[in-house]
Amino acid sequence: MELLPPEQIAFQRLLDTIRRNFERFGFLPVETPVMELSEVLLTKSGGETERQVYFVQSTGALEKAQSSGGDALPELALRFDLTVPLARYVAEHEHELAFPFRRYQMQRVYRGERAQRGRFREFYQCDIDVIGKDSLSVRFDAEMPAAIHAVFSEMAIGKFTIQMNNRKLMRGFFEAQGVVDPERQALVLREVDKLDKRGEDHVRETLTGEAFGMPAAAVARILEFVKVRSDSHADAIARLDALDTADANPVLREGVAELREVLELVRALGVPEDHYALNFSIARGLDYYTGTVYETTLDAFPQIGSICSGGRYENLASHYTKSKLPGVGISIGLTRLFWQLRDAGVIDVADSTVQAMVALMEADGLADALDIARRLRAGGINTEVQMEPRKLGKQFQYASRAGIRFVVLAGEDERTRGVVAVKDLKREMQFEVAREELASTLRVELAQSQALEGR
Amino acid sequence: MELLPPEQIAFQRLLDTIRRNFERFGFLPVETPVMELSEVLLTKSGGETERQVYFVQSTGALEKAQSSGGDALPELALRFDLTVPLARYVAEHEHELAFPFRRYQMQRVYRGERAQRGRFREFYQCDIDVIGKDSLSVRFDAEMPAAIHAVFSEMAIGKFTIQMNNRKLMRGFFEAQGVVDPERQALVLREVDKLDKRGEDHVRETLTGEAFGMPAAAVARILEFVKVRSDSHADAIARLDALDTADANPVLREGVAELREVLELVRALGVPEDHYALNFSIARGLDYYTGTVYETTLDAFPQIGSICSGGRYENLASHYTKSKLPGVGISIGLTRLFWQLRDAGVIDVADSTVQAMVALMEADGLADALDIARRLRAGGINTEVQMEPRKLGKQFQYASRAGIRFVVLAGEDERTRGVVAVKDLKREMQFEVAREELASTLRVELAQSQALEGR
Repeated sequence: MELLPPEQIAFQRLLDTIRRNFERFGFLPVETPVMELSEVLLTKSGGETERQVYFVQSTGALEKAQSSGGDALPELALRFDLTVPLARYVAEHEHELAFPFRRYQMQRVYRGERAQRGRFREFYQCDIDVIGKDSLSVRFDAEMPAAIHAVFSEMAIGKFTIQMNNRKLMRGFFEAQGVVDPERQALVLREVDKLDKRGEDHVRETLTGEAFGMPAAAVARILEFVKVRSDSHADAIARLDALDTADANPVLREGVAELREVLELVRALGVPEDHYALNFSIARGLDYYTGTVYETTLDAFPQIGSICSGGRYENLASHYTKSKLPGVGISIGLTRLFWQLRDAGVIDVADSTVQAMVALMEADGLADALDIARRLRAGGINTEVQMEPRKLGKQFQYASRAGIRFVVLAGEDERTRGVVAVKDLKREMQFEVAREELASTLRVELAQSQALEGR
Repeated sequence: MELLPPEQIAFQRLLDTIRRNFERFGFLPVETPVMELSEVLLTKSGGETERQVYFVQSTGALEKAQSSGGDALPELALRFDLTVPLARYVAEHEHELAFPFRRYQMQRVYRGERAQRGRFREFYQCDIDVIGKDSLSVRFDAEMPAAIHAVFSEMAIGKFTIQMNNRKLMRGFFEAQGVVDPERQALVLREVDKLDKRGEDHVRETLTGEAFGMPAAAVARILEFVKVRSDSHADAIARLDALDTADANPVLREGVAELREVLELVRALGVPEDHYALNFSIARGLDYYTGTVYETTLDAFPQIGSICSGGRYENLASHYTKSKLPGVGISIGLTRLFWQLRDAGVIDVADSTVQAMVALMEADGLADALDIARRLRAGGINTEVQMEPRKLGKQFQYASRAGIRFVVLAGEDERTRGVVAVKDLKREMQFEVAREELASTLRVELAQSQALEGR
């Protein structure tokens, strides 16, 4: 995805909003190199990830590989997510970091997927994670929904719901239905995932049929279970209470207890209760997440799917250190989200970063125009100057097309009187202001508009 | 270069300062993909650049290349600067952009150099360029020093000087000394470049010796010329006037006229005259720049060399479009600069992005601590909460080490009275404040400190 400036400005505003809110929640910035050692990147990947990796070779390495005719893997590769680099980073700097370690990272990642609508080979991920040493209280799991809520509220992209589940709760429930083997659980979940597409009857037939041979009563309970969505905080707690019986599976009870604590703390953190809900169908990466899992959906655009997902994991970096590093995190795939929001008409690309343009009215007026620009810039107004004489109509046309709000003019008459004329293209009005008050006046106008637009 | 969070915060602040000032001068953001087609990247490179390129291959492409045993170049490569991607971008989007096109771009670039102290294989470049269509007034050349001045003034890294020269002026002067062939000019300049290292006598002997065979008078004039440094605006103009004689070479006169106009406009843009100077020894890339050239040095750290360089070029994208696209631009190599400033002790890494920490005083005090954090965050204060009970001493120790300024405490007593206690670790003082006024009070404290520190 390569953007023209108006859209790049809109994209940059989303990045800024995410960064501001990640920092608001006390996460610290980390950036890692785009290249990692291939052996680091591929340690925990299955075949699918390896197929998507981009390898990197300097000219020298390439020539050497070509002349030797060998089929060794290149030494370097581009990261395909921010989790593996985080694991390597934490393991490498373990003794220099304070735990729990709270980091945010907003960088591009690379996957050699077949390019298709809305899927990109190079895309931004915006991640937060909290990493504990040896242990990490489940309390931290409550900060993820609070941070997600802050980010998407400020983005103003419409009502969203943070959906939560817990892998222990799920595992316990499936065990209680006689599906004990984790791999078999995964297979059953894959069938259950087809509910929306194939319908309930199809899924029930498959699970009770030859391939799975499950009892009809267990299948019915599973189908009922995965349909659970809470519609309020009290409803969520009640649904957890209903599972938490004295004879319930102990893993299930642990999951229920965790989820209950997380829900209570999410409420204490001020997330409105119509913005979070239980959803017992959410599984996420089954081999990775071990506790709380999150997905976030836009109420008006369910077809977009999850716009922010994550969960709790037992051990971040077992490949790179002997320390046990449990953590919890979420990730926003911003490039894809931006593309989809733009498609849905939710992204506003009207305003430029340039707030004022100083017009050039006379051939010898440049020094004066530059002095006005200097005052504007010193006063915090992003300003462009028309450096070459053009017809005034052309200059206005340029400002209007570029989305620049204020055009500042100072001809002979204005100069004599120590004022400038300002044309506000947004409010379609014109006014005069003393030179000394120009920047502060425009600052007030911009602040008022921002306040009115709720930004 | 991979940084720990305190240094990453300092680095991010420099990036933010650069971005803010680039936008202040009306430049628009552009980001391009890190990978370009190899044929695009290598069109205009000499051998040296090609040796430094990193090639990229997906797993599929790698396997195909290995099985065919061919020595074709991989299709994709990592950008080694931001100029080639700009050329490709402008050519590709020529009909969607408004000219003069003012863009800034702050992204990482990749060079397969031998890793050594202060040289990195992956580093940030922060560029601005103005691109014209068919022509671009020399007036735009004056905006570069003004933007450089704004950036480095706000960075507060000490006094700097923007040094300027003009390739036409240089070319004309060398022609007047009988060095007409551009390649011979380059060779002479390379010798002159050794002045500092080898001394004037050595250079004079080389140029008058067998290899060059130049007349002693011409060599003397050249050695005098390249030593020119102006020490004020008036001095700079006077030195240009001295060159601008009726019988001067026409190319030299054109260069003098350009440089004079640029200097006058730089002054009109408010750059203090002790921050810019003529330096007739600056040449930069001889095959690329054709008019004004810039280098910027820190007065206290001349050994660092130029921290921001650039110049005027005749045609940006001749390889990718038939349109003539002249431009002017500058580039800051931020990774190297950061590394050097850190080495020189100029980078301050004291403050965290986290401004407040809510301590956890009682095992059951978490909901209250989270409520305080919610108020702080809503009031714009970056806040971390101690989620797990620890001794208060440990909590203070953590905040102090992490560079967090305010520790907020609310025990039984404070809760009853509707207040919180705040410990200001920076000013080493403690105060109480009503809960409702906590965020606004800290905002005022932070703003006061910023004002005091001139930030």
